[in-house]
Amino acid sequence: MSNLYTEHLRALPEFASVDATIVSRLAATGEVFELPADTVLYEQGSTPDRFYILIEGKIGLTGRSSDGRSTVVDVLMPVDQFALAALLSGGEHLMGAVTLTPSRVLGIPAATLNRMLGEDPCLTRAMLASMSRHYRTLVRQVKDLKLRTSTQRLGCYLLALSDEHHATSFRLPYDKRIIAERLGMTRENLSRAFAALRAYGVETRGAAIKLDNVARLAAYALPDRPVAAEAAE
Amino acid sequence: MSNLYTEHLRALPEFASVDATIVSRLAATGEVFELPADTVLYEQGSTPDRFYILIEGKIGLTGRSSDGRSTVVDVLMPVDQFALAALLSGGEHLMGAVTLTPSRVLGIPAATLNRMLGEDPCLTRAMLASMSRHYRTLVRQVKDLKLRTSTQRLGCYLLALSDEHHATSFRLPYDKRIIAERLGMTRENLSRAFAALRAYGVETRGAAIKLDNVARLAAYALPDRPVAAEAAE
Repeated sequence: MSNLYTEHLRALPEFASVDATIVSRLAATGEVFELPADTVLYEQGSTPDRFYILIEGKIGLTGRSSDGRSTVVDVLMPVDQFALAALLSGGEHLMGAVTLTPSRVLGIPAATLNRMLGEDPCLTRAMLASMSRHYRTLVRQVKDLKLRTSTQRLGCYLLALSDEHHATSFRLPYDKRIIAERLGMTRENLSRAFAALRAYGVETRGAAIKLDNVARLAAYALPDRPVAAEAAE
Repeated sequence: MSNLYTEHLRALPEFASVDATIVSRLAATGEVFELPADTVLYEQGSTPDRFYILIEGKIGLTGRSSDGRSTVVDVLMPVDQFALAALLSGGEHLMGAVTLTPSRVLGIPAATLNRMLGEDPCLTRAMLASMSRHYRTLVRQVKDLKLRTSTQRLGCYLLALSDEHHATSFRLPYDKRIIAERLGMTRENLSRAFAALRAYGVETRGAAIKLDNVARLAAYALPDRPVAAEAAE
């Protein structure tokens, strides 16, 4: 049985090698959620009951402390999976999930996932690869938080966006509050960091960013990988 | 074929349910490394060629920036696995691995692991669960880094050690430089944080710690889980 979302699932890099029939079956068991912006899909502390695939939109994975402070641990772009680790752990959600823009999400019930993981080694292998990728994303973030100043983190973030867009002029993908939380700083710190980066050729007008001197910014912010030559003009 | 390290592998929580024959085969293909303290097992940026199981000792997973600053992303205690995500990603090691004490490590060649993952769905499932646990460890760390002050992080760390020891008097498990890096602060910040925690009943003499008032410390540091009743005396 084919399904509208089979191709979306196969857009997950790790799912490209999984048998199309299996992916179709997985997609067919999913329930589609069409969510407006700022919808809480689940709360931190709740019991996981589904594994999700983000088809369209943007999802913020959020954390909060017991005194009510909150942050964005990560932002997901389509196509990606989430809630898998929580579901498999048998514990509670360590993070909440909230839509940052109108989003379409495919939710696959825990029982279905568990049955299919038992039946198809190739699917399990794909999930393992996907989980490894998410783990490595957090390794990069922990290193970013521990080894760089907040201004360097913003610099690296802008360089990554520039690489992604293959352009030195681009727009921020979500609002500055989310960017501040994603980068582990306050909104005030983010404003100061943008101001400090002017000396490295970073021009901002609202959400519009222009990098005048990528090499100089990279020499200051020290991104993990060399900035692509095409972005350096 | 049974093996000296089969039982160690089965001490990994996720491996308890894997067929003993499979675990024995995996253990039998491993090479044992007996390493003195401060031995670099592999460097950040190198190509992964093995998946490792820590049998005895302590391993620091380290990160460094291109200007030579370094940090400890995480510290592993036996029995645990590492280097799996790097190996499966096809990329380079995002972290180095260094022994913090004399350690015994079982290294399983990439080719063996890949073959066995292809053959045994139960093993793959165990690896997925293990990777999920590691992912969640980093989620907790990112939340800790973003939502707490460095002094609160130290407070939570001491409360966790107290829980682990079921005692309010215990010794720090590794030296203060490593603790500072693990908690994302400088050595000087750590000293200041210890001094600040005196007001919450934290007594230190070298590596010896005594918590005089667990409830008061918890009210200040706000750990994720309620501190176990037995630790509160």
